[in-house]
Amino acid sequence: MLDAALAQLVQHGYDSLSIDVVAERSGVHRTTVYRRWRDVGGLLADVLHEASVDAWRPPDTGSLEGDLTAVNQEVQAALTGDPVTVALIAASFRSTQAATALRAFWTDRYDRCTDIARRAVDRGEIPAGTDARRLLIAATAPLYHELVLLRSAADPRLPEQVARSVAIAASAGAFS
Amino acid sequence: MLDAALAQLVQHGYDSLSIDVVAERSGVHRTTVYRRWRDVGGLLADVLHEASVDAWRPPDTGSLEGDLTAVNQEVQAALTGDPVTVALIAASFRSTQAATALRAFWTDRYDRCTDIARRAVDRGEIPAGTDARRLLIAATAPLYHELVLLRSAADPRLPEQVARSVAIAASAGAFS
Repeated sequence: MLDAALAQLVQHGYDSLSIDVVAERSGVHRTTVYRRWRDVGGLLADVLHEASVDAWRPPDTGSLEGDLTAVNQEVQAALTGDPVTVALIAASFRSTQAATALRAFWTDRYDRCTDIARRAVDRGEIPAGTDARRLLIAATAPLYHELVLLRSAADPRLPEQVARSVAIAASAGAFS
Repeated sequence: MLDAALAQLVQHGYDSLSIDVVAERSGVHRTTVYRRWRDVGGLLADVLHEASVDAWRPPDTGSLEGDLTAVNQEVQAALTGDPVTVALIAASFRSTQAATALRAFWTDRYDRCTDIARRAVDRGEIPAGTDARRLLIAATAPLYHELVLLRSAADPRLPEQVARSVAIAASAGAFS
């Protein structure tokens, strides 16, 4: 049912999404769909919750710049190759439940990424007391800004450029 | 008519916006509204175009960190105090014309902000050849990310924190 909902969202947009359509696409009785989600907001929240109960761990490349580059390559791939990500961000402007779930998804990702900052501290690359969340947001926000808000074409150099500038700032103590 | 359109967008959302509603709110005949805009996308594009033909110049505080802090305070004020800004960003996910106009608005702002980088180069704060657009996006993207995508509460320290980290990165040559 989640796959059916996502396919509908990507192909026909938020306005087309309804319990009835998901029931029809997934071949499940509408009562079953309704019992599980009540409304489209609940359905989108569940999609995001499902996406976050994975085993994802941040990449471990041996350097802060390498780790941030690898994270950014994943972000760029998701924002350019996978229409689901942008469709969910767009839906977050329509549904408070989706917005809350998206925030929870990202917060969980930032929490997992504290490993990146901890390892960089252990290696002596950045000062102890570096704020991992601020570091991660600085490292990823320019990609979202370019690809989601400015709708720029993907620049294959961008993940590494942004990672390098943030690693330099972090080593100079800019996030502590 | 533009004011009527914006008021409708902010109060009742994109779905409520139509040529008829704008005609009614502004007391102008619908033919006049229709002749000017054709559709809601054209209307929103015009709103953004109007917003960009102003005399805005970037703040000149005497330091790169000061200039970026002042820009970020304006961004934070717009994203938290003025519902029009977020409503236009939300509308950009509904209308290709609005998305294109938003991109043009921001691009014009980045062009004007090249003065910030040029002055910092002249003062010897950052290396010649610094990419002003990358610098500006790094300096503002975390605010949009926190306030628009993550829907975080505004943190009054954020404009300066982000400005400082980007000024440090820029002085280390991270954007050249």
